[in-house]
Amino acid sequence: MEHNLPHTMALLTRTPVALNALLRDLPEAWTLRNEGENTWSAFDVVGHLIHAERADWIPRAKVILQFGETQPFEPFDRQGHAREVQGKSLGQLLDEFARVRTENLGELRALNLRPEDLARRGRHPSLGAVTLAQLLATWAAHDLTHLHQISRIMAYQYREAVGPWSRYLGVLQCAGHSSS
Amino acid sequence: MEHNLPHTMALLTRTPVALNALLRDLPEAWTLRNEGENTWSAFDVVGHLIHAERADWIPRAKVILQFGETQPFEPFDRQGHAREVQGKSLGQLLDEFARVRTENLGELRALNLRPEDLARRGRHPSLGAVTLAQLLATWAAHDLTHLHQISRIMAYQYREAVGPWSRYLGVLQCAGHSSS
Repeated sequence: MEHNLPHTMALLTRTPVALNALLRDLPEAWTLRNEGENTWSAFDVVGHLIHAERADWIPRAKVILQFGETQPFEPFDRQGHAREVQGKSLGQLLDEFARVRTENLGELRALNLRPEDLARRGRHPSLGAVTLAQLLATWAAHDLTHLHQISRIMAYQYREAVGPWSRYLGVLQCAGHSSS
Repeated sequence: MEHNLPHTMALLTRTPVALNALLRDLPEAWTLRNEGENTWSAFDVVGHLIHAERADWIPRAKVILQFGETQPFEPFDRQGHAREVQGKSLGQLLDEFARVRTENLGELRALNLRPEDLARRGRHPSLGAVTLAQLLATWAAHDLTHLHQISRIMAYQYREAVGPWSRYLGVLQCAGHSSS
């Protein structure tokens, strides 16, 4: 389907609530373990989602609206969550994610975007020309790619415990496709 | 990690709440669309999770405890959710999933499993000998494989809307690995 702003916002509203329901107070064996060296735990992923709320979606939307293609976006630091998560508990990160997401949805509403705004173009530092609609669709799909990743990271912890059933569990065959 | 009964139960408790938070009242463009012919929508997946609660986990645990390897499990019907979902709304399915999961966790608690019970073996109709611990680990990992699938099905709806960002979104590179 085409990008649809109310659909995007409906999804963006639900992700922090869903992650909270899934992860809060879960044993750390699920939330702090990763998939091996240089991979992320569910805890790290929540930190990354917070960092993206601060550095990616709304700031880039504003760059498009203000400068169009004349000013490329700041590159996004995929390791930028290291500062977010330092010294924090998962519960604190889940609270923080809910808070910054609510703020950003408020900012998005306040932009009062019209169809002609959604068609406006900006410049991604490596992808080139992108539209505001594509940026907002990616915000929603980025939530889903990390929900996909979290379910994979957690399933990985039981990859041996399931014994011969592993061949029936699609998530255990998922190679990750990318670092996210 | 090894199978751990409290960890398994912690996850099994959260899945219906997390799916409810993610899916309830979401536009049908997210929940009723699938990935193409002969694939499932998020709605279908919730129906499948309900069907597995009725036909798979607890019934099979009881077969292991009562008959050991002498009586193979009933084969599981992967299309068995068709009857579950007929005429129902997604809200009704989410309510039903929460209800049957709570009942089954009650049954699991009532079995009062000791470590020697978890090591008992049963016979899967195609996988052969499996332990009760492996069955219970698979119950949890099965929740995760379907959360992984739901996030992939939903992201698929925006595969074109994200434009050039698709190459950065791991979930859009996921081929599904299996029908689940």
